[in-house]
Amino acid sequence: METLVARIALALVAQGRTLATAESCTGGWVGALLTDLPGSSKWYLGGVIAYSNELKKQFLDVPSDLLETHGAVSAETAQAMVEGIRKKTESDLALSITGIAGPGGGTPDKPVGLVLMGIAAPPPFETVVFEHQFEGSRAEIRKEAALAALQHVLDAATSQPE
Amino acid sequence: METLVARIALALVAQGRTLATAESCTGGWVGALLTDLPGSSKWYLGGVIAYSNELKKQFLDVPSDLLETHGAVSAETAQAMVEGIRKKTESDLALSITGIAGPGGGTPDKPVGLVLMGIAAPPPFETVVFEHQFEGSRAEIRKEAALAALQHVLDAATSQPE
Repeated sequence: METLVARIALALVAQGRTLATAESCTGGWVGALLTDLPGSSKWYLGGVIAYSNELKKQFLDVPSDLLETHGAVSAETAQAMVEGIRKKTESDLALSITGIAGPGGGTPDKPVGLVLMGIAAPPPFETVVFEHQFEGSRAEIRKEAALAALQHVLDAATSQPE
Repeated sequence: METLVARIALALVAQGRTLATAESCTGGWVGALLTDLPGSSKWYLGGVIAYSNELKKQFLDVPSDLLETHGAVSAETAQAMVEGIRKKTESDLALSITGIAGPGGGTPDKPVGLVLMGIAAPPPFETVVFEHQFEGSRAEIRKEAALAALQHVLDAATSQPE
């Protein structure tokens, strides 16, 4: 995790770019990992822990009808969250995470461990949503989700130089 | 930490009350700790990782002139952050944390390890701001801050039954 964060920091500082996050099922853990690194305020603006649907609407402008139609754990919500946080914070890169960490809350269509992650960046980059199906306990799923999220951020930070 | 979170959860669920957080120097770690517990969505709404001053203004309505006059690490900012997050999320209880985790950023007046925490609740409760001076590495200061924050939340949750 620490190595991933250090590599994200190097890439973003070199490019003078910033990052913001919108986390649901990880509850702020990605933000905590990013800010473990001294000097992270140079490139990490912060973000929103959009744990409840109300906060997804309030802080990220996720539309109510989108949440009702597709659910909080959906590619559509992940996309709306990441575009919402990028717009609100005016960050260069943005990350969103929404999923079912369990042990409750799973359904046949959306089992425990399903996690959607969005990555947004300025045009011509188009928002990408990644779907993961993690296994294990709540703690394991959250850890796997945080790790995958950092990897997606690193990929975006290193593949999209200005 | 886990015991503190479990006790917060018990108190809030028993009272049907909710919590929101606004973290700066802990970067989302308190949110991550709160959501480690299954079922935390019953009482934890989420919050804001207000790492940059821009996000303190954008999401928490902390006034620019307050930040300029008193600085981001001040009792005034901690109070504005906690009242901002409670108002925006309509939570019952709210917590804010702003401080200097180091290793850089300290001054004689505001040394590394200085952390201010605000607790807000509905009237007649008045917002309280606690000042801490922690010692140690960045990781130790952040851990001590998260621990103290959870203790303040528990105190507020158990001393203010409706």
